[in-house]
Amino acid sequence: MSLSLAKVVKTEPLPEAEAAWTKLVKSTYTDPKGRSRTWEHAERRTRPKGSDIDGVGILAILEKSTGPEILLQKQFRPPLDKVVIEVPAGLVDAGETAEEAAVRELKEETGYVGTVSETSPVMFNDPGFCNTNLRMVHVVVDLSLPENQPDGLKPELEENEFIETFSVPLATFWAECKRLEAEGYAIDARVGTLAEGIEVAKRWKL
Amino acid sequence: MSLSLAKVVKTEPLPEAEAAWTKLVKSTYTDPKGRSRTWEHAERRTRPKGSDIDGVGILAILEKSTGPEILLQKQFRPPLDKVVIEVPAGLVDAGETAEEAAVRELKEETGYVGTVSETSPVMFNDPGFCNTNLRMVHVVVDLSLPENQPDGLKPELEENEFIETFSVPLATFWAECKRLEAEGYAIDARVGTLAEGIEVAKRWKL
Repeated sequence: MSLSLAKVVKTEPLPEAEAAWTKLVKSTYTDPKGRSRTWEHAERRTRPKGSDIDGVGILAILEKSTGPEILLQKQFRPPLDKVVIEVPAGLVDAGETAEEAAVRELKEETGYVGTVSETSPVMFNDPGFCNTNLRMVHVVVDLSLPENQPDGLKPELEENEFIETFSVPLATFWAECKRLEAEGYAIDARVGTLAEGIEVAKRWKL
Repeated sequence: MSLSLAKVVKTEPLPEAEAAWTKLVKSTYTDPKGRSRTWEHAERRTRPKGSDIDGVGILAILEKSTGPEILLQKQFRPPLDKVVIEVPAGLVDAGETAEEAAVRELKEETGYVGTVSETSPVMFNDPGFCNTNLRMVHVVVDLSLPENQPDGLKPELEENEFIETFSVPLATFWAECKRLEAEGYAIDARVGTLAEGIEVAKRWKL
């Protein structure tokens, strides 16, 4: 199986009555000067009642003897018609905390068992366009554990999920993003912006 | 004028025929095993023909004597019904490069004149949900220039734009994100993830 075999055959308008996952809405709002205005935006239909997030991203660090590496994935994404470089991620289930969703999704998508070290604020993906959001959950993967040995990993993917997992050294993450883009992959914003933040820290000696 | 006076009054379904800025589409695609499947997603209607991006984000650094600070904005966003902490940003005009859009938007939104130092790969905001994307353009603002003096800044905002500009030290950026969220602001993904990348660099001594 090669991810590069996947491709979009056609894209057509989606009638509202058919939409099961997405919706368009119009909000009427009062601006800071008291004037009434409208704004068009998009939403997911899947955010659980009572949850403040749609999903989680997982910043999983593999502690290797050669230095820390970040766990990344290649996944074909129909909205882009490209294979995208992403962090492991997933939607939260009803009643689930961000941390529970992260540990569950990491295990399902990659087979790795990890320990949560930190959770980010809620981060909004594109606040002028949609309300979709996530928390990034930081997870450390102990590679000395029997369940995390490379030949013992057992991802449990859905039948419509095709994911390849790999890792890159944090030290060369920004250069890897540029190399992967040059090879034809699309770069997810979490991946690119994390790498960018590391470069900013180096540049300004933080 | 206070941004906190803005609020959403109602949100209703948007009929497709009325949508001017957004659209929902359905793609039929072949998965990596050759099976035909469909995927729902959202798009902007505003990406210029021939452009590979919708817009730009601007990572603008103010070189202060006390250390580098990142330029941020507070803006009310109807899709979230909240004031959001964002980097300066904007949609690209037809025929405009990412760098040209960044310098123009920075001047319009904040009054600052900056010099481009680097441009990121194209980064996709939420690849499972929509194709919206941007490049982050890194801009250095020389505070010794006459046009960048605080009392001489002349933002040129649209009549429906209400933006407050401020800056925070890169050294305490992650803590500032958490403080701003605790005060009720929403955190844009570029802002939170850049701060997160800086923390990762510190934690792993990169």
